[in-house]
Amino acid sequence: MILDNFKSVLSKYDVVFFDAFGVLKTYNGLIPGIENTLAYLNDHGKDFYVVTNDASRSPDQLAESYFKMGITDITADRIISSGMLAREYLDYKVRAGLVAYVGTDNSAHYIETAELKTISIRKVNLDDVSDINALVFLDDEGFDWNTDLTKTLNLLRKRNIPVIVANTDKTYPASKTRLSIAVGALAKMIEDTIGRQFIRFGKPDPQMFIFAYQHIKNYPHVSKRNILMVGDTLHTDILGGNKFGLDTALVLTGNTQAEDAEVRIRSTGIIPTYISVSAAID
Amino acid sequence: MILDNFKSVLSKYDVVFFDAFGVLKTYNGLIPGIENTLAYLNDHGKDFYVVTNDASRSPDQLAESYFKMGITDITADRIISSGMLAREYLDYKVRAGLVAYVGTDNSAHYIETAELKTISIRKVNLDDVSDINALVFLDDEGFDWNTDLTKTLNLLRKRNIPVIVANTDKTYPASKTRLSIAVGALAKMIEDTIGRQFIRFGKPDPQMFIFAYQHIKNYPHVSKRNILMVGDTLHTDILGGNKFGLDTALVLTGNTQAEDAEVRIRSTGIIPTYISVSAAID
Amino acid sequence: MILDNFKSVLSKYDVVFFDAFGVLKTYNGLIPGIENTLAYLNDHGKDFYVVTNDASRSPDQLAESYFKMGITDITADRIISSGMLAREYLDYKVRAGLVAYVGTDNSAHYIETAELKTISIRKVNLDDVSDINALVFLDDEGFDWNTDLTKTLNLLRKRNIPVIVANTDKTYPASKTRLSIAVGALAKMIEDTIGRQFIRFGKPDPQMFIFAYQHIKNYPHVSKRNILMVGDTLHTDILGGNKFGLDTALVLTGNTQAEDAEVRIRSTGIIPTYISVSAAID
Amino acid sequence: MILDNFKSVLSKYDVVFFDAFGVLKTYNGLIPGIENTLAYLNDHGKDFYVVTNDASRSPDQLAESYFKMGITDITADRIISSGMLAREYLDYKVRAGLVAYVGTDNSAHYIETAELKTISIRKVNLDDVSDINALVFLDDEGFDWNTDLTKTLNLLRKRNIPVIVANTDKTYPASKTRLSIAVGALAKMIEDTIGRQFIRFGKPDPQMFIFAYQHIKNYPHVSKRNILMVGDTLHTDILGGNKFGLDTALVLTGNTQAEDAEVRIRSTGIIPTYISVSAAID
Repeated sequence: MILDNFKSVLSKYDVVFFDAFGVLKTYNGLIPGIENTLAYLNDHGKDFYVVTNDASRSPDQLAESYFKMGITDITADRIISSGMLAREYLDYKVRAGLVAYVGTDNSAHYIETAELKTISIRKVNLDDVSDINALVFLDDEGFDWNTDLTKTLNLLRKRNIPVIVANTDKTYPASKTRLSIAVGALAKMIEDTIGRQFIRFGKPDPQMFIFAYQHIKNYPHVSKRNILMVGDTLHTDILGGNKFGLDTALVLTGNTQAEDAEVRIRSTGIIPTYISVSAAID
Repeated sequence: MILDNFKSVLSKYDVVFFDAFGVLKTYNGLIPGIENTLAYLNDHGKDFYVVTNDASRSPDQLAESYFKMGITDITADRIISSGMLAREYLDYKVRAGLVAYVGTDNSAHYIETAELKTISIRKVNLDDVSDINALVFLDDEGFDWNTDLTKTLNLLRKRNIPVIVANTDKTYPASKTRLSIAVGALAKMIEDTIGRQFIRFGKPDPQMFIFAYQHIKNYPHVSKRNILMVGDTLHTDILGGNKFGLDTALVLTGNTQAEDAEVRIRSTGIIPTYISVSAAID
Repeated sequence: MILDNFKSVLSKYDVVFFDAFGVLKTYNGLIPGIENTLAYLNDHGKDFYVVTNDASRSPDQLAESYFKMGITDITADRIISSGMLAREYLDYKVRAGLVAYVGTDNSAHYIETAELKTISIRKVNLDDVSDINALVFLDDEGFDWNTDLTKTLNLLRKRNIPVIVANTDKTYPASKTRLSIAVGALAKMIEDTIGRQFIRFGKPDPQMFIFAYQHIKNYPHVSKRNILMVGDTLHTDILGGNKFGLDTALVLTGNTQAEDAEVRIRSTGIIPTYISVSAAID
Repeated sequence: MILDNFKSVLSKYDVVFFDAFGVLKTYNGLIPGIENTLAYLNDHGKDFYVVTNDASRSPDQLAESYFKMGITDITADRIISSGMLAREYLDYKVRAGLVAYVGTDNSAHYIETAELKTISIRKVNLDDVSDINALVFLDDEGFDWNTDLTKTLNLLRKRNIPVIVANTDKTYPASKTRLSIAVGALAKMIEDTIGRQFIRFGKPDPQMFIFAYQHIKNYPHVSKRNILMVGDTLHTDILGGNKFGLDTALVLTGNTQAEDAEVRIRSTGIIPTYISVSAAID
């Protein structure tokens, strides 16, 4: 049931979507052999994209991080991030004024435009919030949780503005044995506390997959049947890919361990088309 | 804050999406004056679509029901229903075999294809379920809740198959003073009981809006800024429209009463672009 | 880690609380050897009680069902049911008038008093509900789910009255391979649909354990340290017993299978003091 | 419907339970006139207790804070706090070893015993956690949220130990216009992230009311019918009091505003026996 020849799977599709963390890389670098996968796709004229719940950096910066690891194939135009959806939302729906953000200054640069200025929650003065038109959760770093999450709560009590969560993940691996709390968990705590409905972008939400689908360059009218989503997480990558109508491959190099895969598929009812030890090939 | 001239709103957009129930019609017929709205849109070359969480009938049958009420403008190609997404899912992901359904026979005809046969949960024999490849919740009628919901639960204990919920609503109005329980509530009960993840189609899910967006005929490359979503329910029509990047208008002829609108907007944080007494015009 | 000598566990306690289903009996009769357990407790002057999420019958009727299976030790005064808590609630808080019930007529007899009359949801006329002062969910049988659950919803829309759920279980085993949907799942569906807060009685709620604690006859001032709760379900028996401060024993003759026990304990964080293959002894 | 003569309500009961915050005091001191209420109760031989979701200090320290505000009637033996339940749980169920705590050192002193030592999450070394037998959430202060909440998550990944939440509140008022995030919200975030079941103490849980009930000195066998619970919050004070079988009075000096009271009662279905502008009397 668990495949060890991923090349035979890849050969059936024209386009492949990859999750980033746990599929292409881990906390300590690239998955060994993943460069062979990308080379195989290039050699056979197949298109591929990285579809990632990451709003901490722009696509350019994400591409640069792959470049530094020796991967030149993952250019910015091959990266679809939840941060891009947040930026699009602000462009369509907020349009102008000031957007408060929870995250690093670096994560916020990407959403700034000529009309839309940003301000860190660190620098927000609660006595002067009348020109803040939206709040965006971008990253778990760049602010003091004790004071600034409390400030976030009180900002929302004063202003009924749209709240965008640009990364819905609850945790991410910080090392072989440690998890970090991701901004999705912090946003959920504030949402539960204030009792309002936040707007979330990120897998498994279909908007991520549509966005990726619309970015496909070389196969502009490809059928969903010819696209494969590859991920390590049942509740995001596989559920979202399935719901969007794609075939899906679960790999065992990240969140899902080989010994748990069958049990989790049975208990969640989230069923990948394939299970493979890894997305790497020889 | 509550507009009474909806024509001035409509004039700003090229394309309009309408929710059906509570916006175009109620339990006892058309909203008076809604025919003027459709005539205005036609006269001014604007495109419009009905975007509805309804899987009980095919678009052809839904269009026929408007025709019987004297509305000839709402043709089948102007109707986007959650049933269409369920059908697309089955086509991409299940492809062949037998699909069990919870609903009326009429609701199931629409999802049948040459490769995909359907069977009512009423007729399922739990000792012979090996060829059932998916389960679809379509309608709250057409089966006995006592025996057939229990049978649904036991079918899912025997078969780990995709479960599709083609109408996420919990209730619908049966008369001026009575609500009926919709199939979305029944599906949620089974999902909570079995502990698996079902696949839901219907507003506020973005997939409904993308599907509608891809069906726009007369303005094929229209910007989302030129589309208006009109609905009576904050949590489905307005939340979904907002998230997809559309301007939104809340009307007060259905689920949301005039006296509650401001309170609900403040408490939910779901903010429509406009509030109008009705979608009808003179 | 899994004990096979339950007598040595029992010997350490003065009082034992048993869950009924999955511990003393299953769908097809008594757990073999359970009569030895009860005899051992009697012979050693230990006190025991059955603590059960069952509101379908009175303690007298429950005792009679054990009697028919050949067990004479489980008298009505040794049975603590969630139905008893519902009855106490009505006595303290509703006091007089009419109580509508969802369940069999048999389940309702028990909650009738001189001041408090009952009416089946089957017989409720929605045009005449002004004298209904409470609603109680008692059993999944005795009414038509299609019509009467809808009637329940509309009753609650007309009357803002206390709603009591006297059995919080979602399912119960109907045979070796089939589950039935319990009234707790039906009540949850109505609660989610109407958006109000129902009052639930049943394990793991501490009120069940307090009620049992107050019924202990032979050891009136027993310390919680000398009471053992024996159950087959982590989320009800073990969680509730732990929270109340009791030692707990998980048995593997019901909801929890031997092969799953360790995984479930690890994933839920609900940790029994002991795990035993059964509550039966030689 | 809203009473302004609270004395007539008090006159009907032998024992009164008061919530603390929003009923007896607010962020800037005592509710004016509350001293008259306590004097009336004393003069008429009625018994009263403060039942509070507060684990940040011991009953002695809480009593001292009332003394400093000029109230001498609220002695330590009249205070029932959720911290007392946490302490009792540790005494019954953990018994010995090391308990990690999230909160101030001051909050932890109270739960220390001869057999049970405590360690702040600040000082926990994740490489040396084998002797930690439980984790308790006590207060939102006394630690760094960024580093120590992450450490809490990783501690629980290494040790499957009981986790006790001794204050279930999500927020508390810090000033007339600002809320603070309470430790209950932080604990909920960690619980959702790790996916385990934590043990919560605090209203509306019945264990708080039983604990208070068992502490009644002057009316040892008082019927629940002769006890009144007075609170400012529907979901904790009123829901919990109702469920335990007590009459309940909602006061409008705290979380529930006069203009919202009727709407909230209708939408939640949590129905107090009385609504009073205040617990103060002339």
